[in-house]
Amino acid sequence: MRVNGKHYRTIWLAADGRTVEIIDQTRLPHEFVTIRLGALAEAAHAIKSMQVRGAPLIGATAAYGVALAMAADPSDAALDRAYDTLLETRPTAVNLRWALDEMRAHLRNRPRGERVAAAYARAAEIADEDVAICDAIGTHGLKLFRDIHAKKKPGARFNVLTHCNAGWLATVDWGTALSPIYKAHDAGMDIHVWVDETRPRNQGMSLTAWELGQHGVKHTVIADNTGGHLMQHGLVDCCIVGTDRTTATGDVCNKIGTYLKALAARDNGVPFFVALPSPTIDWTVRDGVKEIPIEQRSGEELSRMTGRLPDGKVVTVDIAPEKSPMANYAFDVTPSRLVTALVTERGSCPATAAGMAALFPDRAPKG
Amino acid sequence: MRVNGKHYRTIWLAADGRTVEIIDQTRLPHEFVTIRLGALAEAAHAIKSMQVRGAPLIGATAAYGVALAMAADPSDAALDRAYDTLLETRPTAVNLRWALDEMRAHLRNRPRGERVAAAYARAAEIADEDVAICDAIGTHGLKLFRDIHAKKKPGARFNVLTHCNAGWLATVDWGTALSPIYKAHDAGMDIHVWVDETRPRNQGMSLTAWELGQHGVKHTVIADNTGGHLMQHGLVDCCIVGTDRTTATGDVCNKIGTYLKALAARDNGVPFFVALPSPTIDWTVRDGVKEIPIEQRSGEELSRMTGRLPDGKVVTVDIAPEKSPMANYAFDVTPSRLVTALVTERGSCPATAAGMAALFPDRAPKG
Repeated sequence: MRVNGKHYRTIWLAADGRTVEIIDQTRLPHEFVTIRLGALAEAAHAIKSMQVRGAPLIGATAAYGVALAMAADPSDAALDRAYDTLLETRPTAVNLRWALDEMRAHLRNRPRGERVAAAYARAAEIADEDVAICDAIGTHGLKLFRDIHAKKKPGARFNVLTHCNAGWLATVDWGTALSPIYKAHDAGMDIHVWVDETRPRNQGMSLTAWELGQHGVKHTVIADNTGGHLMQHGLVDCCIVGTDRTTATGDVCNKIGTYLKALAARDNGVPFFVALPSPTIDWTVRDGVKEIPIEQRSGEELSRMTGRLPDGKVVTVDIAPEKSPMANYAFDVTPSRLVTALVTERGSCPATAAGMAALFPDRAPKG
Repeated sequence: MRVNGKHYRTIWLAADGRTVEIIDQTRLPHEFVTIRLGALAEAAHAIKSMQVRGAPLIGATAAYGVALAMAADPSDAALDRAYDTLLETRPTAVNLRWALDEMRAHLRNRPRGERVAAAYARAAEIADEDVAICDAIGTHGLKLFRDIHAKKKPGARFNVLTHCNAGWLATVDWGTALSPIYKAHDAGMDIHVWVDETRPRNQGMSLTAWELGQHGVKHTVIADNTGGHLMQHGLVDCCIVGTDRTTATGDVCNKIGTYLKALAARDNGVPFFVALPSPTIDWTVRDGVKEIPIEQRSGEELSRMTGRLPDGKVVTVDIAPEKSPMANYAFDVTPSRLVTALVTERGSCPATAAGMAALFPDRAPKG
């Protein structure tokens, strides 16, 4: 997608053919800064410090991290060390383990002399595969948008509400939930996005609004409290969000607050879509509310805010009473009964075990 | 309620018997500062700049504003000027007009020589009446809490979720939604409050958490996105909120986001209570969603945040992308079907036209 009129991915091989460049997402929306990763330790730091975030992008960064390790030392010991170092950066990220397993399987049985080239080639493939998955999600999601838009008055604006950031910044390009939005915009649809601020980390205001603005997509940032009111008044044609983990029955674990929007959507007859690359489906889980453990993060994500002073200096301030305890649950689970459809790279399906099994007969559990 | 161990109201007559003192609520939670109001213009400024806010407190401040005007000039012209000046500070506040009408009716037919004393006496009565109303709401609300608490295991903590600030800072003392919480705490119940941050103005984090902390009530601040997850996991025994306007059928207009919590409460079988002084009932409105106009405020309330730097200096920072539009809807309407009970100074009732008419036969529209 575009930044200052130029096409970017979130991660790319530098002109030297060895180092890797990323966008430092911790500096957005205040500053657009790219960083060069020259070694395994720098790749691990980028994931851990959330300079890169979003499951697909974490996977791609880990793959390039292995390539950087091989460039320094193509030994078996170095390969194992890279695997372990990167895996522990975000131990719960499903795509991270998948990407590392892919890289190790691809390299282990090769002669050392071939490993460096093979590592860079496989990392590039993993990045390209993510782009292809997100591109396909966009195409399938756009079809759902068009079906709803066709029922409105000709020429009416199409209003989509999204939560958190499931945009190209969370992937290598296109995004998941935002991919159909970019496709619709690029196809000339008059689309407008309600962007949930997404407290406490504000990924909606800081990342989604920023990337939509850079690409020229009409949008308005709202407090997370606002979506219900908008839906009551017919100002939302559909919701679309991403997901960190989807169960085999269609329950959706996503950024905290997703469940509240799904409730409002059902109460007002608004379609609620979830966009997901199939690797985020956890075929072993059936009841998301009961079985998925919810990460609790630091209360400082709630009580501290980073922004720009009038002179442009970026500072962090404390906004809470000094002694008040904070709780910071990072995710919630939206029961499948509230989800209108899942949008995957293979197409859309109902958020049910049967719907998912029909789309993924090769992966769904039998019976 | 208590601040630094000392009992305070939000407004009181100073020791000189003429000027009036308030807490400057725009400085909370970072600084506790009281201000002395010595003239009509200062009272008007305090309301307009939201140094005082909350419908009941605005009414009491306006009443004292008239007294200050009379102390300077007890003429008919001065009385009319005070009425007009104060009314236009917050033109939509129902209690403001009510308090001004009370003061004018009380003073107009008196000789000038009696007006100053009469004005201070009536202003003190209005403040005392608000305290009595909130005290009664607390007593009736506590009964509802006890009924629910009695069904839990003996000794179990009682968890209440609230949104925005309907505490003593919004009234003269006790608060509306927080009044039963203070009563429960003072009676020795092991009560804990989940405090919704309440974006965009953060009244939950800045005011509710601060006042609960000062009074020693256990509480935890959460992002507005969190309540649904907590209710799914049995961590909320009931919700209680205030209201700016309640229709004759029990629809509740309150701070934006209230509706989302009411949806989550219904989805999880959690009682959802609304505390209200009866003057906030609008007996002329039947369909809240269709008929109540929703105030839209500046987007800067969303895109700018005030907090403390590490050196203690209080500054305001911009947190949003520079060019992203913001929308700031201040209130939403929770349909009566989602409200378990209304808690008024006369007792509790179902959120229905019949329930309200039974409690207020003297005020409800006939038929």
